[in-house]
Amino acid sequence: MEKVKARTLSGFMELLPRQQEQFERLKAVLEETYRLYGFSPLDTPVIEASEVLLAKAGGETEKQIYRFQKGDSDLSLRFDLTVPLAKYVALHQGELSFPFRRYQIGKVYRGERAQRGRFREFYQADIDVIGDGKLDIINEAEIPAIIYRTFTQLGLERFLIRINNRKILNGFYAMLGLADHAPEVMRLVDKLDKIGAEKLGLLLCEEPYLSQDAADEILSFILIKGSNAQVLERLEEYRGRNEVFDQGLDELHTVAKYLGSFGVPEDHFAIDLTIARGLDYYTGTVYETTLLDHPEIGSVCSGGRYDNLAEYYTDKQLPGVGISIGLTRFFYVLQEQGLLNEDLPTAPCDVLVLPMTEDLSPAVAFATACREGGVRTQLYTEPKKFKAKMNYADRIAVPYVAFLGEDEVLNGVVSLKDMVTGDQEKVPLADAPAWLKARLAAGAGGKVIRG
Amino acid sequence: MEKVKARTLSGFMELLPRQQEQFERLKAVLEETYRLYGFSPLDTPVIEASEVLLAKAGGETEKQIYRFQKGDSDLSLRFDLTVPLAKYVALHQGELSFPFRRYQIGKVYRGERAQRGRFREFYQADIDVIGDGKLDIINEAEIPAIIYRTFTQLGLERFLIRINNRKILNGFYAMLGLADHAPEVMRLVDKLDKIGAEKLGLLLCEEPYLSQDAADEILSFILIKGSNAQVLERLEEYRGRNEVFDQGLDELHTVAKYLGSFGVPEDHFAIDLTIARGLDYYTGTVYETTLLDHPEIGSVCSGGRYDNLAEYYTDKQLPGVGISIGLTRFFYVLQEQGLLNEDLPTAPCDVLVLPMTEDLSPAVAFATACREGGVRTQLYTEPKKFKAKMNYADRIAVPYVAFLGEDEVLNGVVSLKDMVTGDQEKVPLADAPAWLKARLAAGAGGKVIRG
Repeated sequence: MEKVKARTLSGFMELLPRQQEQFERLKAVLEETYRLYGFSPLDTPVIEASEVLLAKAGGETEKQIYRFQKGDSDLSLRFDLTVPLAKYVALHQGELSFPFRRYQIGKVYRGERAQRGRFREFYQADIDVIGDGKLDIINEAEIPAIIYRTFTQLGLERFLIRINNRKILNGFYAMLGLADHAPEVMRLVDKLDKIGAEKLGLLLCEEPYLSQDAADEILSFILIKGSNAQVLERLEEYRGRNEVFDQGLDELHTVAKYLGSFGVPEDHFAIDLTIARGLDYYTGTVYETTLLDHPEIGSVCSGGRYDNLAEYYTDKQLPGVGISIGLTRFFYVLQEQGLLNEDLPTAPCDVLVLPMTEDLSPAVAFATACREGGVRTQLYTEPKKFKAKMNYADRIAVPYVAFLGEDEVLNGVVSLKDMVTGDQEKVPLADAPAWLKARLAAGAGGKVIRG
Repeated sequence: MEKVKARTLSGFMELLPRQQEQFERLKAVLEETYRLYGFSPLDTPVIEASEVLLAKAGGETEKQIYRFQKGDSDLSLRFDLTVPLAKYVALHQGELSFPFRRYQIGKVYRGERAQRGRFREFYQADIDVIGDGKLDIINEAEIPAIIYRTFTQLGLERFLIRINNRKILNGFYAMLGLADHAPEVMRLVDKLDKIGAEKLGLLLCEEPYLSQDAADEILSFILIKGSNAQVLERLEEYRGRNEVFDQGLDELHTVAKYLGSFGVPEDHFAIDLTIARGLDYYTGTVYETTLLDHPEIGSVCSGGRYDNLAEYYTDKQLPGVGISIGLTRFFYVLQEQGLLNEDLPTAPCDVLVLPMTEDLSPAVAFATACREGGVRTQLYTEPKKFKAKMNYADRIAVPYVAFLGEDEVLNGVVSLKDMVTGDQEKVPLADAPAWLKARLAAGAGGKVIRG
């Protein structure tokens, strides 16, 4: 028969079993954390009607969409989880309770140019809190707590949650009479990290709509640094000149005030006036999260407050706040940087049962007892040489092997071999599941990411 | 602004939060059970190159595929999880350890005619064990144990795992000189349940290639009933006439022999000679699972043994055995039939914290302590009337509400209200997380499906 070459499309992550286990563990920590903060799981279709999905899209995004015809229908694959959320909330608003808190971890699709570390199919892990008309500022203060807990639970220690408020930025530029040019200026300011203050100063001066004074003011504003208290104090100097600015500053004070009670240590959180977030729909607090030892990765968790989630579908005002982690890329980076904790078990089972008798009934009964006892068990009955069986055990990295020969069966015991230490012990059959369970529990623990 | 009508495509399941929680729980039981039997999670792309995905397809399946062009690429969405597994194993064979045991729970796509209870996007939950050249028969005996545990863990009691062996069928038809016509005959035999024995007898006689004698033999063969021991005994009468039949009978004996040790009660398992499974690639044991009180649903978990998983991609012989649950349809049916256990909690959180003080710090600190203690907590700070807040608590069906007023804060306590009994109790702040945790644990338990 002529063969078709088996291949996986480029830009599509497909993991080997060991890595898949690591990825699942990462995802599980996210889910558990999101649930701890009272978020409901949501699962929307991967395919949507194009006119629904692209109600807002345009430009770059639209070019990347996987869009196609099926019968009479013009369909598209989702490119993020925010648009499907907007559709969901607009469609089901009468059946939801607000604030509506949901998390969604799902695959999204973007036909980007394939390159190392860029994916066309990738997981996003999003949380959002959606209000009905209004949404209290405390929700904006809670988000950094969720980010903090997520990353510390994963095992990360050296990361920084950077916060700003779009009202402060918009208000500041309005003070300078630059309301109309704010987006352009922010796009320039966004380059600060890459090009440095001096070069940025020159660039600002080149803009025809900016006087030298304005350029100086902008530069000195975005260079405000220090502890959060110091930054807030410096910002107070601008109070009274613009209403929107003052409101943003109040919000920033509130967010900063409650972070301690939310459990976020001062040193994991910084007010950073250079952060704007590209998306034009953020209207209040905005967030970025950077790994201190890997600034080159950029933000691993970003988001912010928006006033109108679903304006393309409904007149109902639906303000919200949310964050998103690009999970597939994050996992890829962790792998690349060797940051995954390789000490955690990745075997598909806890014990591999090797029967050494013709009648397999005792081995089957033992495997069944182990499973009843909550021990993940695989029965290996392929007729191979002993060495091949042990090779298999090694390759799947199983922590325990159980030998069950005539001798053991006669004496009602099983020989249990610890594959790490090499120690072997005969244990009464009835006690073995608990014996294994106890040892597995003792060996468990450890975070997904190396500290 | 002109609005786009928010809608979800027909044939695509999208659940409300309560139902989503029920679905997630169902999925979690499957995952946990599969893991207990030593299966690794696998996650392959939703999109594959069309020439890879459709290497084998044809006829009805091919028409249903979501297939499209993106740039120069001819792409298709997966329509099952078996073809991607075949591709995966063929592609990564050098890096996998055999037997390779994997589970995959993922969405697949079929552009079927939309009708009630039929979905175009639906979850399949598959497990497969793949051997390298050979695969021991014990794996075929283990599958019913996994089915049994999966459904009992879900809470189902009245179901039957029906088993047959394709070698017995093929051998039997070969005995009658009908080897070439076996598929046609099996297609007719498959109608037995629907049309009854008498009508089937008439249909068989109409087939030009069947003598009256052969039709009678077929009918009496497929009507063999009784306990498993009785059926096996009746089948022994055919031994010695065809080698393939004898081999199939040996396999069936082996499967039946070990089922007890695997923990499957005799009354949940029946040898049923009418089962053939439509797919032409099964070669040994085949499985169907029916709900005794809902035979109209058909099989909820089916599969079997095959000799050659990936023949379209590789010369390597990869025999395997696997089963699949059509999870979305199964959930839909459970919902329709009112079989989901509505007593299980579906609230997004365990406790809703209602601050009654201007400074929210004590409430935030309390919510943080609850979360530290593993209690899923939501802080409700929207400036609404008390009644609206309690309405919200009712609507999300949260089991506990925590009130924290000036009084409570002064005395270092929190008022905890049990939303089921209406009882309210003042508990020291420091003890409250453990107090909640203990009560939640006591109230937990219960299966996904009503028994």
